[in-house]
Amino acid sequence: MFGFNVLKQSTKSRARAGVIQTAHGPVETPVFMPVGTLGSVKSVTPEELTASGVQIILGNTYHLYLRPGREVISRFHGLHGFMNWHGPILTDSGGFQVFSLAKLARVTAEGVAFQSHIDGSSHLLTPEISIEIQGWLGSDIMMCLDQCTAYPASFEAAERAEETTFDWARRCRDAWRSAGGGHQALFGIVQGGMHQELRRKSAERLAALDFSGYALGGLSVGEPLDLMLQTADFSLPLLPDEKPKYIMGVGRPEDLIDLVCLGADMFDCVLPTRNARNGQLFTADGTLTITHAWHRTDSDPPEPGCACYTCRNYSRAYLRHLFLSRELLAYRLNTIHNVHFFVDFLRRIREAILKDEFEDFKKRFYENREI
Amino acid sequence: MFGFNVLKQSTKSRARAGVIQTAHGPVETPVFMPVGTLGSVKSVTPEELTASGVQIILGNTYHLYLRPGREVISRFHGLHGFMNWHGPILTDSGGFQVFSLAKLARVTAEGVAFQSHIDGSSHLLTPEISIEIQGWLGSDIMMCLDQCTAYPASFEAAERAEETTFDWARRCRDAWRSAGGGHQALFGIVQGGMHQELRRKSAERLAALDFSGYALGGLSVGEPLDLMLQTADFSLPLLPDEKPKYIMGVGRPEDLIDLVCLGADMFDCVLPTRNARNGQLFTADGTLTITHAWHRTDSDPPEPGCACYTCRNYSRAYLRHLFLSRELLAYRLNTIHNVHFFVDFLRRIREAILKDEFEDFKKRFYENREI
Repeated sequence: MFGFNVLKQSTKSRARAGVIQTAHGPVETPVFMPVGTLGSVKSVTPEELTASGVQIILGNTYHLYLRPGREVISRFHGLHGFMNWHGPILTDSGGFQVFSLAKLARVTAEGVAFQSHIDGSSHLLTPEISIEIQGWLGSDIMMCLDQCTAYPASFEAAERAEETTFDWARRCRDAWRSAGGGHQALFGIVQGGMHQELRRKSAERLAALDFSGYALGGLSVGEPLDLMLQTADFSLPLLPDEKPKYIMGVGRPEDLIDLVCLGADMFDCVLPTRNARNGQLFTADGTLTITHAWHRTDSDPPEPGCACYTCRNYSRAYLRHLFLSRELLAYRLNTIHNVHFFVDFLRRIREAILKDEFEDFKKRFYENREI
Repeated sequence: MFGFNVLKQSTKSRARAGVIQTAHGPVETPVFMPVGTLGSVKSVTPEELTASGVQIILGNTYHLYLRPGREVISRFHGLHGFMNWHGPILTDSGGFQVFSLAKLARVTAEGVAFQSHIDGSSHLLTPEISIEIQGWLGSDIMMCLDQCTAYPASFEAAERAEETTFDWARRCRDAWRSAGGGHQALFGIVQGGMHQELRRKSAERLAALDFSGYALGGLSVGEPLDLMLQTADFSLPLLPDEKPKYIMGVGRPEDLIDLVCLGADMFDCVLPTRNARNGQLFTADGTLTITHAWHRTDSDPPEPGCACYTCRNYSRAYLRHLFLSRELLAYRLNTIHNVHFFVDFLRRIREAILKDEFEDFKKRFYENREI
């Protein structure tokens, strides 16, 4: 049921436009996936996501496993029914949050033992358990459990994490196959820190396992921007071109356009939603801080010409007032604009690729930023 | 431009159905007005209010005067343009918040001096200033500045407040007339505590000033329910029947139905919106506390059969999860249901009055509560 087709390959870069087929419909790539951590893209409804052009959202396995948990979500036959989003969903493996958010995470022979950040209760996450959880979440795309290294990571530490990641990927694939695979796709995740030798090893070993798609993990973990792009530039061509290539947890609009240029198809990041709740609005000219005094009587929408609900109906002065008054509507209206901005940005990138004008589009994007 | 017509008078009680004409369209009465304190009915958009059947909202003069203030709102030619709500708006006079929320409120010959609850800055609110502020807010219905007494209030204290209220009402009317009245209506407010002699005096003196409508203030300020209903029962017939009669700051569904029975046409209260944010949902069977454990896997909507967006799309289990996780969407989905409940409750009351079946409707309402 899952499939991927490249519709157009840029003649001047590795940028490409394609379509992923999932059990809940198609996803046009390159694509940005808003993050719906706890079964809700914070403050907005599924209808608002659809109106913003969102095609696919991300759910967090670690969070949803802890609450509301299996019994509740199974009552609704999975996350789609529970949260009333009937488009495609990708779930992460839970690994990233276990290592970054949970307490006392400890890698064992079986997997990783940890304590809940909510109530300190003890849990074990193994490749098999991650696949099982993502099974009852019912996501369209599951991710393999992996071990991400922080930056900087020594060669030895990155090598151990890569070994663990590969071992877990094999076990995830086996568990997925045993469960029948079914309508859920499974992506492998390349690790290896910023060490090219390890990235190559990881990519090649994972490619041999024939996953539905491939992700680069362990990027945007504190390394300099140049090193992130360099690692992506080196790693992306090592992944099979006939599969979707997903960069996890990145990033800013400029990162997205650069990574598309290097051959990436999928992105997720909390940036548009989190920054919205901090009063930061994305525009083609850069970031707008809604609290600034010069917006006090500013009757312009956040981004003149933008087609989102917020820009069609509200002024910066009103958004500033709502934000300073801590009105709940502030977070929502800002989120609608930012999500629309990211999704529409990728939509325009895709359009440019289809016309083989992506590199011009990218040039104009950077010129616009310099004004 | 402002007008009021009684379309149907119940044959068995003082309940009545009518239509108010305002500069921003008609309002069918009896009507419930959600509170939009700071230029936003907390967490919801104008479109969601309209979809819930909301006809008119209330804005708070005290809050909007302090922030965002005149310069900002005037830039948008008033509150309608600023908040993008193009239906009728009623504004209070600011008096209630000055006496309940501001610091060091002190009645002087001119009006009431107070300090902002936000930054402690000093301000003076007079009848003339209240009318001026409501003028630039551009509300369809303005309220006279009044002095509300707490419960219990001695005869002497209530008498002084009634004197002040009458003096201010006359000055408000003069200021309103001097400003041309224009498209904005002005309502007088009856005070007098729970003292019938004072309520009668207040009502009669105000009626002689020929306001566009009349309100009962100083109810639901801590008095026993019986006394509130008794005071309303005594006072409502003293107001001119050809004008809308508005009970300020009340209340629960049972209060609304009882007060409609006594002849009231208009209501406002923070109950549906505030309780929504506390996880309390109104239903025909009573109040539902969304955090209760028995809703953990409850796939029913908040109120089966309810036509609101929340009930058509979400389960109690999902709302409980969102609320416990402090997801912003929780407050909004709960608010949509509660506002719809109150507005639809008044709509059904009106329908029953038009069919002269209101007293049966009221009986069934109370029978349903007893189950």
